[in-house]
Amino acid sequence: MTFQNELCLAPIGYVKTKAVGDEVKNKSLVSQLVISENLAEALEGVEDFSHLFVLFWLNQTSEEKRTVLKVHPRGRMDMPLVGVFAARTMCRPNPIGLTLVELLKVDGNILTVRGLDAFDGTPVLDIKPFDSWDAPENARVPDWWIKLNELKK
Amino acid sequence: MTFQNELCLAPIGYVKTKAVGDEVKNKSLVSQLVISENLAEALEGVEDFSHLFVLFWLNQTSEEKRTVLKVHPRGRMDMPLVGVFAARTMCRPNPIGLTLVELLKVDGNILTVRGLDAFDGTPVLDIKPFDSWDAPENARVPDWWIKLNELKK
Repeated sequence: MTFQNELCLAPIGYVKTKAVGDEVKNKSLVSQLVISENLAEALEGVEDFSHLFVLFWLNQTSEEKRTVLKVHPRGRMDMPLVGVFAARTMCRPNPIGLTLVELLKVDGNILTVRGLDAFDGTPVLDIKPFDSWDAPENARVPDWWIKLNELKK
Repeated sequence: MTFQNELCLAPIGYVKTKAVGDEVKNKSLVSQLVISENLAEALEGVEDFSHLFVLFWLNQTSEEKRTVLKVHPRGRMDMPLVGVFAARTMCRPNPIGLTLVELLKVDGNILTVRGLDAFDGTPVLDIKPFDSWDAPENARVPDWWIKLNELKK
């Protein structure tokens, strides 16, 4: 990894939420994306989409966690040890979070969304509209993934 | 945007494809993700997923294009002028591409995938497994989006 290979980003805004700790994992959680005022124009038309992908910087991921290659999903020892690219862990070389959210309201540079699992103050990197070509009809996932989803319910 | 706000990434690998120009938009296109050998371990278990999200650096996006706030989708003047966050254009403040691909084969540090709309040599930033919670049951999109999808067929 050399300096010339580095690709740099700047936040387009920040997450605003009262949720703390595990509360952010609640899929019904409503939070806000406060987008920089100088980028407000770039939001024009988002209100016509019901769902958006939000890309954000996992700012609670330390430099050390960026070197982790394998994890037990959600830190559960009853889950297999898998590569970080086979998990949605925050431990990853490039700490970018990706979550599909429901868009509830747009008010100027502030988007109110449901289902964002990000902490207060998280830097937002990008917003992309969701389309059905982002979803396959029959996705196959491993058994441990299904078990983990059931545990989350 | 100040230096201290910058968040830096490094490629985890590169896209390998023979497709050029508009050929990369073909959803049946098969291409490869050549992941750095020192990260191969982080791929363990990806073979159990049929679909993956690939995040990549839109390296054909100039610094100037990162300041564009509104676009006519796909450059079509018959499409409305919308904010870049309401489109999947490569013109965006943080030039990160996001595509859902079908995983066909894993061979060591090389993933063979179908449906990646990225050029040869594109830096890959992250790979995340797809799960059904990434897809809503009833997504609403604007009329112009539906029309654009029909034109692509």
